[in-house]
Amino acid sequence: MLNQSSSLDRLFHALADPARRAMIERLSRGPAPVSELARPLPMSLPSAMQHLGVLEEAGLVRSEKIGRVRTCSIQAAPLSLAEQWINARRQEWEHRLDRLGDYLKSLEQEGDHDDSAK
Amino acid sequence: MLNQSSSLDRLFHALADPARRAMIERLSRGPAPVSELARPLPMSLPSAMQHLGVLEEAGLVRSEKIGRVRTCSIQAAPLSLAEQWINARRQEWEHRLDRLGDYLKSLEQEGDHDDSAK
Repeated sequence: MLNQSSSLDRLFHALADPARRAMIERLSRGPAPVSELARPLPMSLPSAMQHLGVLEEAGLVRSEKIGRVRTCSIQAAPLSLAEQWINARRQEWEHRLDRLGDYLKSLEQEGDHDDSAK
Repeated sequence: MLNQSSSLDRLFHALADPARRAMIERLSRGPAPVSELARPLPMSLPSAMQHLGVLEEAGLVRSEKIGRVRTCSIQAAPLSLAEQWINARRQEWEHRLDRLGDYLKSLEQEGDHDDSAK
């Protein structure tokens, strides 16, 4: 549980930056060399490499050096972990709203019943 | 687009802390006073209030003072924004994997065809 918690810390932290999200957006469409990931970003290559490091630490990206080119690919499982956490919260509040709706309906029906009893 | 990007920055940053996620987990089950949100956390009330401030700035939580009690409630729309961003990435890579699967299948069928032609 603690491990999952610190995984979520690193995951959400990794996603909290526009440059890192741009890299994830690119990698969702397929693997890419580091140079291609860095090119559209308004920063130096070393800065882009630092952002890439944060994504790798969070487990969101894996990179592999083939010959002289380092190619990055997205790792689906960690991103799913973040999605699942949000999804579970949404299910909880939707469930709560459903129950509230049922309760209000039951009050309404009680009201109808009272009216017809008059 | 820029506005949405900075919203996502604040959202994911807000979710990158276990104390703030614990507050969101509690509020998914219904509104709660600040004191109840702070109680289970291993920190002082002022520290808990600071975390609550980060959640409010991200738009994830709204608080309202009724009499002497400040009650907090979750705001569904911003959390959905974060969910949608992750969801869109997953759809992209699943689509890519589907196409890759189709391609591999077509290669296999070509192979079968070649075999039967022998």
